[in-house]
Amino acid sequence: MRYLNKQAKFMDRYVRKWSGLVQEWDGSGTIGGPALIGAPLAKASISHSGAHLAPRAIRSLLDAYSVYRTEEDRDVQGTLHDCGDIVMHVTDVAASQQRIYETVRDLLRRHQSMLPILLGGDHSISYPGIRAFAEERGKIGVIVLDAHHDLRNLEDGGPSNGTSFRSLLANGIVEGSHLHQIGIRNYANARAYHEYAKEQGVHVYTMGEVERKGADRIVAACLQSLRGKVDAVYVSLDMDVLDQAFAPGCPAIGPGGMDSRTFLQFVQLLAAEELVQGLDIVEIDPTLDVRDMTSRLAAHALFEFLSVRW
Amino acid sequence: MRYLNKQAKFMDRYVRKWSGLVQEWDGSGTIGGPALIGAPLAKASISHSGAHLAPRAIRSLLDAYSVYRTEEDRDVQGTLHDCGDIVMHVTDVAASQQRIYETVRDLLRRHQSMLPILLGGDHSISYPGIRAFAEERGKIGVIVLDAHHDLRNLEDGGPSNGTSFRSLLANGIVEGSHLHQIGIRNYANARAYHEYAKEQGVHVYTMGEVERKGADRIVAACLQSLRGKVDAVYVSLDMDVLDQAFAPGCPAIGPGGMDSRTFLQFVQLLAAEELVQGLDIVEIDPTLDVRDMTSRLAAHALFEFLSVRW
Amino acid sequence: MRYLNKQAKFMDRYVRKWSGLVQEWDGSGTIGGPALIGAPLAKASISHSGAHLAPRAIRSLLDAYSVYRTEEDRDVQGTLHDCGDIVMHVTDVAASQQRIYETVRDLLRRHQSMLPILLGGDHSISYPGIRAFAEERGKIGVIVLDAHHDLRNLEDGGPSNGTSFRSLLANGIVEGSHLHQIGIRNYANARAYHEYAKEQGVHVYTMGEVERKGADRIVAACLQSLRGKVDAVYVSLDMDVLDQAFAPGCPAIGPGGMDSRTFLQFVQLLAAEELVQGLDIVEIDPTLDVRDMTSRLAAHALFEFLSVRW
Amino acid sequence: MRYLNKQAKFMDRYVRKWSGLVQEWDGSGTIGGPALIGAPLAKASISHSGAHLAPRAIRSLLDAYSVYRTEEDRDVQGTLHDCGDIVMHVTDVAASQQRIYETVRDLLRRHQSMLPILLGGDHSISYPGIRAFAEERGKIGVIVLDAHHDLRNLEDGGPSNGTSFRSLLANGIVEGSHLHQIGIRNYANARAYHEYAKEQGVHVYTMGEVERKGADRIVAACLQSLRGKVDAVYVSLDMDVLDQAFAPGCPAIGPGGMDSRTFLQFVQLLAAEELVQGLDIVEIDPTLDVRDMTSRLAAHALFEFLSVRW
Amino acid sequence: MRYLNKQAKFMDRYVRKWSGLVQEWDGSGTIGGPALIGAPLAKASISHSGAHLAPRAIRSLLDAYSVYRTEEDRDVQGTLHDCGDIVMHVTDVAASQQRIYETVRDLLRRHQSMLPILLGGDHSISYPGIRAFAEERGKIGVIVLDAHHDLRNLEDGGPSNGTSFRSLLANGIVEGSHLHQIGIRNYANARAYHEYAKEQGVHVYTMGEVERKGADRIVAACLQSLRGKVDAVYVSLDMDVLDQAFAPGCPAIGPGGMDSRTFLQFVQLLAAEELVQGLDIVEIDPTLDVRDMTSRLAAHALFEFLSVRW
Amino acid sequence: MRYLNKQAKFMDRYVRKWSGLVQEWDGSGTIGGPALIGAPLAKASISHSGAHLAPRAIRSLLDAYSVYRTEEDRDVQGTLHDCGDIVMHVTDVAASQQRIYETVRDLLRRHQSMLPILLGGDHSISYPGIRAFAEERGKIGVIVLDAHHDLRNLEDGGPSNGTSFRSLLANGIVEGSHLHQIGIRNYANARAYHEYAKEQGVHVYTMGEVERKGADRIVAACLQSLRGKVDAVYVSLDMDVLDQAFAPGCPAIGPGGMDSRTFLQFVQLLAAEELVQGLDIVEIDPTLDVRDMTSRLAAHALFEFLSVRW
Ligand SMILES: [Ca+2]
Ligand SMILES: [Ca+2]
Ligand SMILES: [Ca+2]
Ligand SMILES: [Ca+2]
Ligand SMILES: [Ca+2]
Ligand SMILES: [Ca+2]
Ligand SMILES: [Ca+2]
Ligand SMILES: [Ca+2]
Ligand SMILES: [Ca+2]
Ligand SMILES: [Ca+2]
Ligand SMILES: [Ca+2]
Ligand SMILES: [Ca+2]
Repeated sequence: MRYLNKQAKFMDRYVRKWSGLVQEWDGSGTIGGPALIGAPLAKASISHSGAHLAPRAIRSLLDAYSVYRTEEDRDVQGTLHDCGDIVMHVTDVAASQQRIYETVRDLLRRHQSMLPILLGGDHSISYPGIRAFAEERGKIGVIVLDAHHDLRNLEDGGPSNGTSFRSLLANGIVEGSHLHQIGIRNYANARAYHEYAKEQGVHVYTMGEVERKGADRIVAACLQSLRGKVDAVYVSLDMDVLDQAFAPGCPAIGPGGMDSRTFLQFVQLLAAEELVQGLDIVEIDPTLDVRDMTSRLAAHALFEFLSVRW
Repeated sequence: MRYLNKQAKFMDRYVRKWSGLVQEWDGSGTIGGPALIGAPLAKASISHSGAHLAPRAIRSLLDAYSVYRTEEDRDVQGTLHDCGDIVMHVTDVAASQQRIYETVRDLLRRHQSMLPILLGGDHSISYPGIRAFAEERGKIGVIVLDAHHDLRNLEDGGPSNGTSFRSLLANGIVEGSHLHQIGIRNYANARAYHEYAKEQGVHVYTMGEVERKGADRIVAACLQSLRGKVDAVYVSLDMDVLDQAFAPGCPAIGPGGMDSRTFLQFVQLLAAEELVQGLDIVEIDPTLDVRDMTSRLAAHALFEFLSVRW
Repeated sequence: MRYLNKQAKFMDRYVRKWSGLVQEWDGSGTIGGPALIGAPLAKASISHSGAHLAPRAIRSLLDAYSVYRTEEDRDVQGTLHDCGDIVMHVTDVAASQQRIYETVRDLLRRHQSMLPILLGGDHSISYPGIRAFAEERGKIGVIVLDAHHDLRNLEDGGPSNGTSFRSLLANGIVEGSHLHQIGIRNYANARAYHEYAKEQGVHVYTMGEVERKGADRIVAACLQSLRGKVDAVYVSLDMDVLDQAFAPGCPAIGPGGMDSRTFLQFVQLLAAEELVQGLDIVEIDPTLDVRDMTSRLAAHALFEFLSVRW
Repeated sequence: MRYLNKQAKFMDRYVRKWSGLVQEWDGSGTIGGPALIGAPLAKASISHSGAHLAPRAIRSLLDAYSVYRTEEDRDVQGTLHDCGDIVMHVTDVAASQQRIYETVRDLLRRHQSMLPILLGGDHSISYPGIRAFAEERGKIGVIVLDAHHDLRNLEDGGPSNGTSFRSLLANGIVEGSHLHQIGIRNYANARAYHEYAKEQGVHVYTMGEVERKGADRIVAACLQSLRGKVDAVYVSLDMDVLDQAFAPGCPAIGPGGMDSRTFLQFVQLLAAEELVQGLDIVEIDPTLDVRDMTSRLAAHALFEFLSVRW
Repeated sequence: MRYLNKQAKFMDRYVRKWSGLVQEWDGSGTIGGPALIGAPLAKASISHSGAHLAPRAIRSLLDAYSVYRTEEDRDVQGTLHDCGDIVMHVTDVAASQQRIYETVRDLLRRHQSMLPILLGGDHSISYPGIRAFAEERGKIGVIVLDAHHDLRNLEDGGPSNGTSFRSLLANGIVEGSHLHQIGIRNYANARAYHEYAKEQGVHVYTMGEVERKGADRIVAACLQSLRGKVDAVYVSLDMDVLDQAFAPGCPAIGPGGMDSRTFLQFVQLLAAEELVQGLDIVEIDPTLDVRDMTSRLAAHALFEFLSVRW
Repeated sequence: MRYLNKQAKFMDRYVRKWSGLVQEWDGSGTIGGPALIGAPLAKASISHSGAHLAPRAIRSLLDAYSVYRTEEDRDVQGTLHDCGDIVMHVTDVAASQQRIYETVRDLLRRHQSMLPILLGGDHSISYPGIRAFAEERGKIGVIVLDAHHDLRNLEDGGPSNGTSFRSLLANGIVEGSHLHQIGIRNYANARAYHEYAKEQGVHVYTMGEVERKGADRIVAACLQSLRGKVDAVYVSLDMDVLDQAFAPGCPAIGPGGMDSRTFLQFVQLLAAEELVQGLDIVEIDPTLDVRDMTSRLAAHALFEFLSVRW
């Protein structure tokens, strides 16, 4: 029965894939370092979203790319723990968000050196995720790549993918001056929420600034502002910070965003900072995507992050 | 400016479209007869669903078909009131269901001779809709066309598109013996829920019986069973009662269901019964559909219902 | 260079394809029997249509099916002349229709025993095509398979795909009593045009009659009515006479039409009548189709017609 | 970590899915009864085919349907062993076919009461599969549902999806009179191969006969002809025996085939015969399919087969 | 009935959308400033085009983006009048073009300070639009962004989307030296028409020049050349000036064009010039587009234009 | 019959298309200069590929673009011979590769001044193509644009699209130091094969180097290294060297590759070198492409190559 295999696929004996670095957590022992946690919640989205399908899409792409970084002539090495997905409630969005909070909290408490990597889902997952992160990792800073502030009021639609950072600020989980938002775009936000951001002391870097200053200077400014003031930094990557041509699978696409090289450069620069101890990647709807391009880019963000960090 | 029009389209002076029979309700006066109520809720679905987009899809098709019934050589005449859509909550599914209940209840109370036609949305809308219908219209019977029982337990996922009829029975809103389910299919249900249906005295007509007996005899049996026992009958049309080839746009498609002629025949037979005083059409996801075929079929169900009823 | 071929494809030495029966007309000599004439006009359509792409789609499928009729254990034999396409004007629809008229007229005049098979294009091509047919072939009858009357007034939109048979009647090219329309459907026509049909003595067979009477009796009735009164019969096949599940590529799809077997049966029955001396197949938009299903069905209609006729 | 799960999905405690009956074979012990064997070979196809993706598509649908047969009010019970996929060679099609032969042979030799169910792949897999079946199970009969004979010569393209039954006859693995082909269609075959079938004594039932005689009489005739003459019967289901509207995902679609109910009826009738000891389902290309309709129908064929057999 | 709404959608009380700046013109009063005029003509296109669907697509996107310009920390304010669509003739393309001419002429005559913004439609609409603009606004200059000259001869296909600027020059409506064409590309034009442009004194800026000189210098050169010589300038934006990766929804796509940032920069620079008193956006076919990317970019061009201008 | 044409399309008398420069080779005479040879082999691909459809897609686009180079104000002139396609074996991949080898060898031997342009097909075609090229044109150098090395071992999958350059080196057809690979990317290759490349003296230019050095310097370095050492240079263009946003139709897409302008610049620079005497374009799967963008880019690569070379 030498040819039988659970799932038939071509194997080249010399190729090491990212999937080979993944270790499914069996619930025992202690995880150190980066660990995937699927947060397949899309029902908190303002617009129709299939973002709950993204963890599966991204994971499947770990088998499509190798660990070899040609540019540096080295194989990336390390263990990427996979904790699996957090099962969502069918009809109770708040309960789903609570499950995310509790699960991340319990994981971080049990695994003191775990670096959580949440795969959304929509951006609503960042609130429970960061809330748990802050409880377990001390005073935190947050750096977001996003076209949008996500500082909406909570009365009109409840805790949605447009309110995560509002909830963090309003509940004192993150201080305004410890929140950095990069890539904010014209026509994608409301004046009231920009005002709110300014009142709270949030650091806002528009796409115009990204173009003028470049990733290096912006990341340096963020980190300089946070170092010494926080115990840990959490990075949140909303893929719609990219131009629609490079990330066609986000629900809220538009022109005028980053290209993929700039985006990956941001990830590398952030990964190089040891303070960064948490990450999420959100707002990919595989049903809207073109040939999984947006999930492929998300997977590459993960590769860059791990390559630098390990 | 004789050529300017809000929305440019070709007009043939002799063609009367269904859209011409629609009258948007302005909130004043009393509605008698059939009235559309959009219930764009899809977040209660167990599987990913864009069924909230169906009311818009179905309404737009009212402009694509004429009111002339060639078979009987007559123009269908009447007024189809359109109450608009019930605005859903972004994140609170239970609140959305409550809004459906309250809105339908208030409409029925105010308009004693209104015949409500709910456009879903997923099948979860039938519970609040029928609950309101029962409160305002007396003892009711319910006739469902569906491949599924929708009698799931409420613990595992809350009030979803799989629990509507369970909730109706469990809350005493409909008696089991007054519920008729037509088109139930193999491999689409669980034994436990079929047992529950039998315990409750629900009348179940499988696809096998549909084939063997035909629509005439089944509808006659349903109505004979209900006449004299209920004050009004509500008909619920889950489009996945059709074979996947005829209704490709339902989330839970499968082979072995009705063809479109049989389905339309059921609608005509049911429409002929004056006891029938409420209707819904559910489980169409326009993002999954092929050329809006399923919405077109839903629109034709509406045409048949109104043509017979008026 | 034994492996070089203009267009690489697999050849099985024993398989004879329909493409092998096609002979491109070089402009010389006289054509007897069936001849393809492409009429790629879609700009006369009321709705957006890519029907001008259908002749290419149908022709390419002649290479996908064999000439062997298993049911009768025989290879179909004969020569299908292909006159090519009539080049349409870019912006002048009336000029395009005139080109169709002139070309068909000249072909029929020159080739007295040609049986023209027009590949539309939208249904507007039938007016110039049949006008030429009538001029060259004597008093004619017309049998149409269509969900629609196509008897619209000419004031509102000019000579479109909705007016062909109106123009034929209004201009005395076909007598009303020599026009038979089969498959006319509810909600697809206007009362005024049905009235017009009745006034003109047009024979109308609704989908209800098709179901009740069957193809045999309807075709027999048509032919009995025409025999002895006309010199030749022209058959026009609008693919939207089919149910949307069987012909998804027509611009004006809807439920409740014919299935494909009934449709092909009509074609066989009509082909058996020697009076039938002209044919067109119209209203296929390959850009809307699913896997060329509608073009495949059109190709099979052509196969059935030729198989019976040769 | 109560909410963590390898793959998040909704679970209803009372629903038993077909996936719950599947038991992955670990290579030890002896398998009795039905067992899935994936044969993901598509490179032997004459036309472009992604049929190698079908085993994965069909398996994933086992989680989408329940084991409850409403018509008979019973849960289907039994164990469906899954041997996994046979890994194909990247560039050597003959080697891939040899791997299928060797693997099926070894499995059948080791597991004397195994009923192999091969999931193709294209129809080329039936030759090595049936060859192994014949070697291990004695004198065999074969019943095929297919629009095509698949009796092509082997010189023009080698052992392709068009030659499986030619190879079986030519190599004496199956006697012509023990081969039954059901659903053969016009324009889908060559005269030479029909002649060959007749010379070999193959029993051919055209679509015309299927319509005239019905599934019951045809299956009865097949089995009566085989009983007492063979030790075991192998059933091969080429999904293109269906009309294109019901099986849009086959590479070689066309109009005029079976509808899905007739197809499933054939499967049930064949499953009821104990002589039937082997099965394959082939020619589904998930990249061409519409909402996995063809895979869903294949899964239902599997359900019917197992339901009757267990 | 507090939850009933004509069209259910989420409303955030603080978000001001572009749709909120739109005021549908009721036919009375005088319009000052920018006004949308839909010109849904696609039948003048040389290739198959659904560009008539673009006005609806662009308008619907006005509800998807906010009026807040983060870069300048201000809400865009002003009134965007919407005159609706000019109803096209079904079959008479010349009549449709005449309707565009008459409607724009009458609007401009009646509303002396209206700044017309025509939403095509294909590029053929620019001829009647600019003809009317020139009649009502005096001596004009025209600046076009386009990969193509659109200077074709009128004999071969009549007044199509390839002839607009030929007609303007030939009829003396615009002087050659007052016509500026930016973004002209290799392999997208004919030598004869480039020669014609040169003979007429048209200013041509190829994509190579766009890359070498940048938007600033090119716009400056255009305006310097026109200032003092014309009374008003009309800007015509053919979206195929963009690279196919950024504007996938144009009928005539190709590689090597502008990226979206450069395109939007051109729009901003042109909007800053008060002489610019007319605008059109053309050649978007929503049926070919990917997630409405091209319409989104067109909407952003409109936003930039209005933001700068108001 | 003045309007009849084999294939109806609009003709502008002044537009000269690339298709007009193509001359189908009739098998006689001697070809000098560039000649197309279709190599429609996709079955050697590791992943599912429809690359055999690319020659047809690219050829059809020769009719969509003109020969006029606006940037240089000249019509490109010359004759592009088209030898047709090499017919592939249905099931024997090695035989198909042998046919490519023999056909190219025979063509090059017979036509001493032919510059072969192979249209793949997958990248496996480069091995037989270059082998023939080397035999007939002397000592050769090879310059490849590709994200991948294609230096895999031959044991695991045979001669696939991942092994072409391994076979060339292993069989001594090209010396390692005469092979230049440009655009090699992170996560797309294995360490073992990069090591192999280094051992063999292959010149590798990563995407990082492409960004840092630019096309000019890299091409200059390649050519300087090859001049005087080889008799002829063969250029192989694997379209996946582009970023996925610019070449969505390659089987192995990913982010971080070239943009289209850089790619076309490389082609121009290479075309300017007279040593370059052979070319192939591979790895385009039209079934995966978006609006034929990747084929359009391939066609433009061909245009640039020919424009510079003629
Ligand atoms: Ca966000
Ligand atoms: Ca965002
Ligand atoms: Ca239901
Ligand atoms: Ca259902
Ligand atoms: Ca018609
Ligand atoms: Ca019609
Ligand atoms: Ca077969
Ligand atoms: Ca077959
Ligand atoms: Ca243009
Ligand atoms: Ca253009
Ligand atoms: Ca390669
Ligand atoms: Ca490659």
